Amino acid sequence: MRIRNVKNKEEILNQSKYLIKNPKDYIGKWHTIFNNHNPIYIEIGMGKGKFIIENAKMYPNINFIGIERQDSILAKCIKKIDEKIPNLIIIRMNALIIDEVFSKEIDRIYLNFSDPWPKKRHHFRRLTSNIFLDKYDKIFKETKEIYLRTDNQDLYTYSIETLSNHNYYLKNISLNLHKELLEEKLITTEYEDKFVKENKPIYSLVATSNQCLK
Amino acid sequence: MRIRNVKNKEEILNQSKYLIKNPKDYIGKWHTIFNNHNPIYIEIGMGKGKFIIENAKMYPNINFIGIERQDSILAKCIKKIDEKIPNLIIIRMNALIIDEVFSKEIDRIYLNFSDPWPKKRHHFRRLTSNIFLDKYDKIFKETKEIYLRTDNQDLYTYSIETLSNHNYYLKNISLNLHKELLEEKLITTEYEDKFVKENKPIYSLVATSNQCLK
Repeated sequence: MRIRNVKNKEEILNQSKYLIKNPKDYIGKWHTIFNNHNPIYIEIGMGKGKFIIENAKMYPNINFIGIERQDSILAKCIKKIDEKIPNLIIIRMNALIIDEVFSKEIDRIYLNFSDPWPKKRHHFRRLTSNIFLDKYDKIFKETKEIYLRTDNQDLYTYSIETLSNHNYYLKNISLNLHKELLEEKLITTEYEDKFVKENKPIYSLVATSNQCLK
Repeated sequence: MRIRNVKNKEEILNQSKYLIKNPKDYIGKWHTIFNNHNPIYIEIGMGKGKFIIENAKMYPNINFIGIERQDSILAKCIKKIDEKIPNLIIIRMNALIIDEVFSKEIDRIYLNFSDPWPKKRHHFRRLTSNIFLDKYDKIFKETKEIYLRTDNQDLYTYSIETLSNHNYYLKNISLNLHKELLEEKLITTEYEDKFVKENKPIYSLVATSNQCLK
């Protein structure tokens, strides 16, 4: 994605009370920031934040942490927060250091429309490569849960294989999420809305360490 | 599929040396029929047999057993065998009794374009339902290997979930098998050729009890 520069991004980021500037200081004690022991869900690559902001508003008893490394995108996200959301915080960081920032305290990871890194020699950079799955093992509290959505077929099939081989069980497999009859209204990302408008299929799955009931 | 009747099907079946009439008698000792200890691959629902006949010719050091319950289809398959194929036999049976016919002796199961049983209340009849996966556990020799191909998206996503939850690892996931660059020529089924001509995607996967190398 080409990112349009946000002029006063430094100022926006510095002044935001949502952005945690020293995330490594909170390793193992993120619940103290929220002042409760509610479950913590993170979104890696939150982009402009629509998905996580709407989730945080909808589920006040879950703590949400959005992660993004691009300043301009973060600034756009922060500008979008129009009301006080006590169960939301944002971290500016590269996902590669995720296991230096969290330790056995995350309940769910959302991976929405992650970079597909199409070239084979870059596959290890995908957020479902074994490098990342090993890191996630260190940050999950107990049950592991990864919710993945993508428009990229190759990233999707790759992820089914890596997750399955990392001993995840797969459920809610969908090759066209928005064509399915869903019980509740889907909270979507900005990207997703664009793809759905273009009639592109959205691939989704849930990977969990809990064997699904037969 | 509506099956066209084959007039002299009884005669064709009775005279065929490929058709084993008393399959339960061979439980646990199918290798004696082939007179060797080569691996045994079975195809459940072999249809008119193109896939298994071509495989048997291509891989003489593998023993192939085709399973089909419809007489007329079996008769068509038998008529198609134009040369002596010593590593091929055929069984007329319902897959439900598969664990009364085989015991710890099968190396690979092929499920090609199985009946999708679209109604939810019939899902248990799918060849990847837990009922069947439990039966397959009893017939595999050591490593379990299921090769699945289908044109039916719903059967495919269902199978990913049931296989994953039955502790299979998934590999070679493809949402459009015939669009991929493959190392070797694919051996296809009659159905498959028709779907490919119509430009319909073929979904495929391999499920195995052997954790795939990272």
